[in-house]
Amino acid sequence: MIKLIITGGTIDKRYNELNGELYFPQTHIPEMIQQSRCTVPIDYQTLMLKDSLEMQEADREQVGLACAESKEGKIIITHGTDTMVETAKYLAKIQQDKTIVLVGAMIPFKINNSDALFNLGCAITAVQLLPKGIYITMNGKVFDWDKVNKDTKIGEFKNE
Amino acid sequence: MIKLIITGGTIDKRYNELNGELYFPQTHIPEMIQQSRCTVPIDYQTLMLKDSLEMQEADREQVGLACAESKEGKIIITHGTDTMVETAKYLAKIQQDKTIVLVGAMIPFKINNSDALFNLGCAITAVQLLPKGIYITMNGKVFDWDKVNKDTKIGEFKNE
Amino acid sequence: MIKLIITGGTIDKRYNELNGELYFPQTHIPEMIQQSRCTVPIDYQTLMLKDSLEMQEADREQVGLACAESKEGKIIITHGTDTMVETAKYLAKIQQDKTIVLVGAMIPFKINNSDALFNLGCAITAVQLLPKGIYITMNGKVFDWDKVNKDTKIGEFKNE
Amino acid sequence: MIKLIITGGTIDKRYNELNGELYFPQTHIPEMIQQSRCTVPIDYQTLMLKDSLEMQEADREQVGLACAESKEGKIIITHGTDTMVETAKYLAKIQQDKTIVLVGAMIPFKINNSDALFNLGCAITAVQLLPKGIYITMNGKVFDWDKVNKDTKIGEFKNE
Repeated sequence: MIKLIITGGTIDKRYNELNGELYFPQTHIPEMIQQSRCTVPIDYQTLMLKDSLEMQEADREQVGLACAESKEGKIIITHGTDTMVETAKYLAKIQQDKTIVLVGAMIPFKINNSDALFNLGCAITAVQLLPKGIYITMNGKVFDWDKVNKDTKIGEFKNE
Repeated sequence: MIKLIITGGTIDKRYNELNGELYFPQTHIPEMIQQSRCTVPIDYQTLMLKDSLEMQEADREQVGLACAESKEGKIIITHGTDTMVETAKYLAKIQQDKTIVLVGAMIPFKINNSDALFNLGCAITAVQLLPKGIYITMNGKVFDWDKVNKDTKIGEFKNE
Repeated sequence: MIKLIITGGTIDKRYNELNGELYFPQTHIPEMIQQSRCTVPIDYQTLMLKDSLEMQEADREQVGLACAESKEGKIIITHGTDTMVETAKYLAKIQQDKTIVLVGAMIPFKINNSDALFNLGCAITAVQLLPKGIYITMNGKVFDWDKVNKDTKIGEFKNE
Repeated sequence: MIKLIITGGTIDKRYNELNGELYFPQTHIPEMIQQSRCTVPIDYQTLMLKDSLEMQEADREQVGLACAESKEGKIIITHGTDTMVETAKYLAKIQQDKTIVLVGAMIPFKINNSDALFNLGCAITAVQLLPKGIYITMNGKVFDWDKVNKDTKIGEFKNE
């Protein structure tokens, strides 16, 4: 059983046709997992639906608490890419006895040419295979929490 | 660097609007990798584009040869799901010193509701994390070659 | 109010992931109309879900009967492209007092790169603007029933 | 031959993965026409790529000039929905000897669940069938320029 904690981020954004802006009407992660014919048992928890640029320290504490309270030792967190590394660093300080993988997308699942499904496949596989620790799966790579940064100019995660 | 050997299968099928049938005009795997913003270096080799039900022993020998000749120790093989297990068993007999992950899809990449991108994400991650051996990544799971079967009634891979 | 008679055809085909073939689990026309934000009142009638190559004389009689029994004077018929002209000719013999537009698609709605929504938009508009008669809307054109043929080599409808 | 004047609007917006905003990297109208297998000859003119809320009087004058200079008597204008009615009214004052159809979309072509292709099919058909005048095709309906308004609360065009 995998615990999947949903916090929002680009991966879950939708287009609002009434005002032309992107928003979070609901999460699409279970729909994505179903489309993927994924048969791994997953326990979903929608913690919040936020752009990660708007995440505050209190939000990260909530994420940390959800990880601590999780009965499952294997946890995926869907998260906006802009502060994903920051949340990973926060979790590394407080949570050492579980395998936690953070993942998001550069293009929303519901927009053409999205990387969302691929990234989710990376996270599902990584969380099953990796030992305890905090990781990020983006761009087809598995990064340790303390050796990764997002290059915002080109929109890619890189080893640092 | 990952070696990605393309053999066809549902993942690469397209709809032929002139006769209403599915066919293989070309592979879409590099397009899928590009959409995924995957920055892992990949060396592509299009070995064949076949429905795996039409794969013969000579085709499997060709796949085996490509694996043997690969300079890379990490190999992904895209493959039809119907005889994926058979090819995995064949490879297990002849190839023991590389990490080989077979992957495909139940729905073509170019058809609505496809599992292709998710599965490809699983394979890319698995091949980077797993020790030497022959594996199948389908349905979000990582299977050892000798402990998996496709349940054709429901279209899912299962441990046996 | 427009009467929309559904007979199947490529526009409504789906991919069957269990056997890799295309089939008709149900119609998607109401879903397509909803996606189009079309607010024209429509009365749907699913008459059959057939590949038009398999349509028999009895099927055409059924289509003709449905047109005759329609209380609405404006009728759209979704239909396979292969024998669409044949059905149009049949209807022209028996039904002169209504505006009937036949429409289909070269690529199923549920497959990448489909012309289905565009064609449906053409049909909805044509049926509202045209006088009584039998018409086909394909390739962005409006054809009279007696001046059209499908060029099967290139998959396009042309004036003849 | 149809003249197709491109001005931007939601129909042509794309998601910018570097900043998470929608923008206009280029027009997608020719790509949409190609996907539609539309064989009607079209002369494209990309006049501007603007959100219609940002259109100024000078922009409308430019649109009017392009209509006046068009050798073709049948003109489609792709346009943002928010001020589409305003542009139609402007054109009605200055251009009486051509058939002009304005069209747009509530959801961009490149976003899931878009009405773009359907609307374009409506416009292509309407411009071929309608007499001289200024029209709007949205929601599957054909509106005269002086009898239509956008209900911004529900995002639908209505007769007024």
